[in-house]
Amino acid sequence: MSDEINVEPTAAAVIGLGQMGTRLAQAFLAGGYSTTVWNRSPAKAEALAAQGATRAANAGEAVAASSLVVVSLPDYATVRTVLDPVAGQLRGRTLVNLTSGTPHDATAAAAWAAGHGAAYVDGAAMSGTRLVGRPEALFVLSGSRGAFERHRTVLRSLGNSTYLGADPALASVYDTALFGLAWGALAGFYHSLALVRSAGVDPAEFGAVATAHMPFVTSLMTDHARQADEGVFPDDDGTVDVHLAAIEHLSDTSDTQGIGTQVPALFRSLLRQTAAEGHGASGIASVIGAIAKGGRDA
Amino acid sequence: MSDEINVEPTAAAVIGLGQMGTRLAQAFLAGGYSTTVWNRSPAKAEALAAQGATRAANAGEAVAASSLVVVSLPDYATVRTVLDPVAGQLRGRTLVNLTSGTPHDATAAAAWAAGHGAAYVDGAAMSGTRLVGRPEALFVLSGSRGAFERHRTVLRSLGNSTYLGADPALASVYDTALFGLAWGALAGFYHSLALVRSAGVDPAEFGAVATAHMPFVTSLMTDHARQADEGVFPDDDGTVDVHLAAIEHLSDTSDTQGIGTQVPALFRSLLRQTAAEGHGASGIASVIGAIAKGGRDA
Repeated sequence: MSDEINVEPTAAAVIGLGQMGTRLAQAFLAGGYSTTVWNRSPAKAEALAAQGATRAANAGEAVAASSLVVVSLPDYATVRTVLDPVAGQLRGRTLVNLTSGTPHDATAAAAWAAGHGAAYVDGAAMSGTRLVGRPEALFVLSGSRGAFERHRTVLRSLGNSTYLGADPALASVYDTALFGLAWGALAGFYHSLALVRSAGVDPAEFGAVATAHMPFVTSLMTDHARQADEGVFPDDDGTVDVHLAAIEHLSDTSDTQGIGTQVPALFRSLLRQTAAEGHGASGIASVIGAIAKGGRDA
Repeated sequence: MSDEINVEPTAAAVIGLGQMGTRLAQAFLAGGYSTTVWNRSPAKAEALAAQGATRAANAGEAVAASSLVVVSLPDYATVRTVLDPVAGQLRGRTLVNLTSGTPHDATAAAAWAAGHGAAYVDGAAMSGTRLVGRPEALFVLSGSRGAFERHRTVLRSLGNSTYLGADPALASVYDTALFGLAWGALAGFYHSLALVRSAGVDPAEFGAVATAHMPFVTSLMTDHARQADEGVFPDDDGTVDVHLAAIEHLSDTSDTQGIGTQVPALFRSLLRQTAAEGHGASGIASVIGAIAKGGRDA
């Protein structure tokens, strides 16, 4: 219960044992790390104790149990409610906050932690809860590089724990952006699935071909990120005008098949705006510029 | 020049030597297959002849040179213009038509080929021209199964040549659907890239994290295709209502950062429609149903 503890009883403390917090604690345990857990309602801590975790009697005891304190709570207001009373015990420790929030939330939490002498790392789990503990589970983390480095081995037991930089807001920015990326891919997939089903294709058969196609689509992203950085959009993957014609065909086919045309309508709008700005003969990644300029055509 | 030829001079004939046709011929040659080529304007055939291809003097000579005739032309009208005069020589041969078109085009071309005693396979190249000849280059093919099987080894030299079924229109349906899938992923990526750049993130750094995240997103497609097939949408990956709240956050953040909100607006519209139809507590793949019902909310 004192902040003079030098030999930490456990390698990680997990505060907040919802679906995510429970998986985090289980992943630490599976990695062979002694783990202390605490939750406002005690039943979830009991289940983890049966799996080898140490139960803390209160949040202060959890903080005192480890130099690595991992927090997963419903929101940042709850984080403050839980940690404010035990802030004095955070001095010299690392707070890894995996609670979902905004860049502003992260910046404010980092300032709060600094005011109490704690190193702060903000983070977000990008792959849901099911994969936690597997190498493909992506966690994006930003904030104190030293704190990340000190605990990187323990954090690696959660999955692909990727450090983004010193700005604590970065993890939240990536979280939001990667969520949008996932939704783009899923919206495209949902539309394509509705389209092929209207033609009598088995969803699983289409799904197998579609997922086999995704590594190619993903490879375009690498190329197009580089193009955006250089501000040069070669037409290696087709021009805006050529894609616009193909999107018209997608929209017409969708309409003929009786399914919704919301999804191709977005692509058409983006391509039309890009062409209207004089980029019809440019590569399709020039659409990034149309989005970056603001939603005037939305 | 006669259709009594039994021992074929070459393993494949390629008619139409645009960017794609040229890459097809090069892939056949790289696979060790003797290849005959023909193009309406002769310069492109000369370049391929220098790489080992046999030049046909006209389309009829190209057809006569191989039991596998691969056509890549600007459109189906051009296919008819080129092949009608030499239709008599197609008897007993396989016509693989990689020209872009509609399901109706494919069905009509298959009937035309059948009328001339030729086996017909329709197809589409899904990975652009740059990857042709590499194992990850996806070609979707449908039509005569026997013809596909007879030539599958030769066709494999083009890449991942995937047979979809006996309906010649299937390849066109997949072509259109996979194009929409790719555009969804790219639109999501373009938006996310515009968002992180507005926060000062380096495009290449974000691109690296984003592409590392895509295998997870792709894995959701497999699950969600199965859910669509079963008509049951568990909330393992979050409910429609939870995602709707997160999309509101994406939209607000995009607006605050001064970038366009067209892309999140589509996701919000799809999720709102799905929630309005009573699926707010269902898994997100229930959005497929909202799209399949038609574009009333578009």
